Amino acid sequence: MLSKVHHVGIAVRDLDAAIEFYSGTFGVEFTYRHTATDQGVEEAMGKVGESWIQLLRPVSPESPVGKFIDKRGEGVHHVAYAVADVEQVLRELEGLGIRLIDEHPRIGSMDASIAFLHPKSVGGVLTELVQE
Amino acid sequence: MLSKVHHVGIAVRDLDAAIEFYSGTFGVEFTYRHTATDQGVEEAMGKVGESWIQLLRPVSPESPVGKFIDKRGEGVHHVAYAVADVEQVLRELEGLGIRLIDEHPRIGSMDASIAFLHPKSVGGVLTELVQE
Repeated sequence: MLSKVHHVGIAVRDLDAAIEFYSGTFGVEFTYRHTATDQGVEEAMGKVGESWIQLLRPVSPESPVGKFIDKRGEGVHHVAYAVADVEQVLRELEGLGIRLIDEHPRIGSMDASIAFLHPKSVGGVLTELVQE
Repeated sequence: MLSKVHHVGIAVRDLDAAIEFYSGTFGVEFTYRHTATDQGVEEAMGKVGESWIQLLRPVSPESPVGKFIDKRGEGVHHVAYAVADVEQVLRELEGLGIRLIDEHPRIGSMDASIAFLHPKSVGGVLTELVQE
């Protein structure tokens, strides 16, 4: 069902500083930057192998990522896996009793079809499914 | 420097239950299981694309993963990246002022050469380097 780790989402306070850190320290090249007003985040994506590192800066303290940083500090916010068909996977997971945050796919980063699963159903891990 | 996401380390209370969950829900096959007494963890590794999901169960509440779960609950514990030469990367990072947990590589999961970087130097992310 999961074809790869699509990305690791990391909550950061200062996006420019985080990009500079990951590129200057680890040589990660960030090729995509976007503000998703509806999600309350500004993000940057840098490729590592077949996966991405997604840096997420909250646009406001009341946004989900803002609340996350307020509560837990900067760090890993979620893990995303690539799947062939998000809608189909959501229906399978729903049948297994998994709690869905998104009942149906929506458009996410890099115009992919995405959906989030509730961390309470996935051992404390906020989990995202991505259909590229 | 980073050739891929080697694994995502996830702290769990019950290893058998977590393996059953990831295999039954997401079809992940766990092919490696090992107890690292010196690290205070029992672990299982399941492949997802070129990466692994590493499930980590603390052997005692006083172990690092035990303390992590006590403080933050189950969830993502660390992110590991593959590099060609851990020792060389450690020296480069030391030169950049990055705080190292392991000054030199040691043997980790699946007999790889590994080293951890301090989360305070990596934006709150406990980061591991793995030389396969």
